[in-house]
Amino acid sequence: MFTKETYIKRREHLRETMQSGLLLFQGNDESPMNYADNTYHFHQDSTFLYYFGINKPGLHAVMDIDAGVDYIFGDDLTIDHIVWMGHQPTINELAAGTGITKTGNLQQLSVMLINNKTRVQYLPPYRADHKINLLQWLGISPGEAAQNASIQMIRAIGEQRIIKSKEEIIEIEKAVNTTVEMHQAAMRFARPGMTEAQVMAKVYEKAHAAGGNISFPIIATINGQTLHNHYHGNTIKEGDLFLLDAGAETATGYAGDMSSTFPVSRTFSSAQKEIYQLTLDAHNAAIDACLPGTNYRDVHLKAARVITDGMKAMGFMKGNTDDAVEAGAHALFFPCGTGHLMGLDVHDMENFGEQWVGYAGNPKSTQFGLKSLRLARPLQKGYVITIEPGIYFIPQLIDLWKKDGKLTDFINYNKVEEYRDFGGIRNEEDVLITETGNRILGKPLAKSIEDVEKERILAFEV
Amino acid sequence: MFTKETYIKRREHLRETMQSGLLLFQGNDESPMNYADNTYHFHQDSTFLYYFGINKPGLHAVMDIDAGVDYIFGDDLTIDHIVWMGHQPTINELAAGTGITKTGNLQQLSVMLINNKTRVQYLPPYRADHKINLLQWLGISPGEAAQNASIQMIRAIGEQRIIKSKEEIIEIEKAVNTTVEMHQAAMRFARPGMTEAQVMAKVYEKAHAAGGNISFPIIATINGQTLHNHYHGNTIKEGDLFLLDAGAETATGYAGDMSSTFPVSRTFSSAQKEIYQLTLDAHNAAIDACLPGTNYRDVHLKAARVITDGMKAMGFMKGNTDDAVEAGAHALFFPCGTGHLMGLDVHDMENFGEQWVGYAGNPKSTQFGLKSLRLARPLQKGYVITIEPGIYFIPQLIDLWKKDGKLTDFINYNKVEEYRDFGGIRNEEDVLITETGNRILGKPLAKSIEDVEKERILAFEV
Repeated sequence: MFTKETYIKRREHLRETMQSGLLLFQGNDESPMNYADNTYHFHQDSTFLYYFGINKPGLHAVMDIDAGVDYIFGDDLTIDHIVWMGHQPTINELAAGTGITKTGNLQQLSVMLINNKTRVQYLPPYRADHKINLLQWLGISPGEAAQNASIQMIRAIGEQRIIKSKEEIIEIEKAVNTTVEMHQAAMRFARPGMTEAQVMAKVYEKAHAAGGNISFPIIATINGQTLHNHYHGNTIKEGDLFLLDAGAETATGYAGDMSSTFPVSRTFSSAQKEIYQLTLDAHNAAIDACLPGTNYRDVHLKAARVITDGMKAMGFMKGNTDDAVEAGAHALFFPCGTGHLMGLDVHDMENFGEQWVGYAGNPKSTQFGLKSLRLARPLQKGYVITIEPGIYFIPQLIDLWKKDGKLTDFINYNKVEEYRDFGGIRNEEDVLITETGNRILGKPLAKSIEDVEKERILAFEV
Repeated sequence: MFTKETYIKRREHLRETMQSGLLLFQGNDESPMNYADNTYHFHQDSTFLYYFGINKPGLHAVMDIDAGVDYIFGDDLTIDHIVWMGHQPTINELAAGTGITKTGNLQQLSVMLINNKTRVQYLPPYRADHKINLLQWLGISPGEAAQNASIQMIRAIGEQRIIKSKEEIIEIEKAVNTTVEMHQAAMRFARPGMTEAQVMAKVYEKAHAAGGNISFPIIATINGQTLHNHYHGNTIKEGDLFLLDAGAETATGYAGDMSSTFPVSRTFSSAQKEIYQLTLDAHNAAIDACLPGTNYRDVHLKAARVITDGMKAMGFMKGNTDDAVEAGAHALFFPCGTGHLMGLDVHDMENFGEQWVGYAGNPKSTQFGLKSLRLARPLQKGYVITIEPGIYFIPQLIDLWKKDGKLTDFINYNKVEEYRDFGGIRNEEDVLITETGNRILGKPLAKSIEDVEKERILAFEV
């Protein structure tokens, strides 16, 4: 798939863009749970994977752009380690696999960085051990590590990684196909009386069995209105809506990310059908709007308008649709963005800072709702994005807006109150921007009301 | 189960032991995978859980022993967070739940620590963010954080946590019961042609479905001779031995830890039976030796002698058994320890340093094999330990010893070479030391050859 030449070419491209500097790429180390040797599953840094492809802990890389030389640094294992861990490739072997002949140990890396302090450029660190490294190598305090990151490097890498190659799209589609299986498994498994954890466990199994892992913590909940919800302790029952947001990561590190919402009962109730259909209409309209050259902000606003129109038709909202969206009134039900970039990171390059990648250096809105949009730049061939508008009845948000008398020209709070315990609905798919339009990645997952109810029958047939 | 009074009593006990000082307990924070907001599942620090019972990120606690006052520190969530996360208890509410009335935010914690630098005592940090905190609060450099930890605090807490209460044993037994289900699931599921990852996925599902998680990274491998093996990419086939080392963690944080070895075929081969039976004999002999007052080192040496006797009978070893064990010759096949303490940590309090807890301050052996023994002190009522002797044919170790001509009085290298690709076998159970002897925790898992083969039939009946 990805060969030595893949990585050499990617580095050549970056070398041409950067023109000068000593670029430091910190690979990730093991991450301890409750003591040093009891670790979470290893997750390599995505940029390190992108340019060097080595999925092992304890390594760092340097590209000396001025000298045109790349290095891999790490400490070779001792024979003691090999007795416990079996044969392990040496640093030289790992480096050769990515087309690099210059290697060194971590002490040599430290010396190189200390001796070249003024030339070093690095990406914003998101792990505490990387901040300690920057302190020890460059004397940068942990509190200042992010702000001293190289914006030039962020932008150069951001513009390179944002366009997915054919090989990357094949890997992403593998992740999406496993993701579809995860969602299908949940739809065909969840029954009243189970816990959310049991459904989550089944979903997780599919990601593991495919030889990879999950790409982000699974949301598997009957409280879909709580957007950041990783609690799985509830027992699910007839009448509940189950919202699943889950994705697979392939062994090569690429992510999938989908959401589905299905009734815990065999069928949706009529109220659930009405809101579900509107969410799906917004979802489909947003996908149709994903064209090369279209700003993703407009894709988002399209979804917001469809939701506003529908919520007006149902009596939750009122007034002129364009004015309501302009004022951000839809954000009472749809307080987040329509989606995000996806690649090696499920929120691709989120650690770089949204303003540099998702916004290409342009300012973000400060309006509630729009400020949570992660991407607002013209779409181009090779972008992979998610589309995931949703409709949520968030009691805390309803109470807050109502108390403040917010946007009463557009919101019928009496009608909203009737639905305050309704929950939340979201569908999410992964979309590739093509030359002329877009393509939904992966095999199809049930999303029409009819198709979802067909899947649900299978859960009750066991 | 664990009530407010549980935590108050535990802290009272510690206060009496310590007599003075300002004890800092760093709670864990979220741990990022590939960017700040994409985190691994949250895992609280075990000592923080033990004394405060709050399973949430972003908190720290202080016990001012001199003043007799305990504090919980953390930043309350804003209404913005609550919109995304639903209702969340306040720091005051969390503190009240553990019987503490004094609270503060993180800025106030920082001020308190800076103002009381000389009185602060803390445990060895194992997470990098905790080291950064110590740098910022106390000016201790990350490289010196561990050596400046309080040995008095380590020993006081170690002696308290090492004795498990009735309530803790109930929780540990829950973890062990789920652990049994994980192993049973693998035995009844694995079939030739599957990947190791598929079996691992099924095992993991059981831990998740029980409402908890895994207590350590799962070993699920046809290369059981590689002791630290987290690779799951092999396809399993007829004739292979499958070694599973996996444990559940309950929602309250207590660990189970078991190992099982079974044939990928319906039955063991005759060579596999012979080695398996010897491993099991050593395992059972070690459990029988677990009596209050007996030093765990002697339990280990008992297992080593049984293995040596058996390996002599099969022709792998020769000479006097006691002399061979004294010389460490058994360690060619059994290079690790017989087991370890288990509780809130699967290797209980491993972050404190083995010399203080497992060795009660006494020196460790430096002999290969014995130096890997994690526990060597007289057993007492209330200890929970694992018993897991194994027999491994490790090609790299065989080559190393053979090349050095090591212990040729005790090893028949020609016979060993015949088995160099045999693999490895281990059984592991969790044992409570009682007033008069011991009790194997949890419901029974197949471990005799006959019982394991009965379980295996079920996998082929699907």
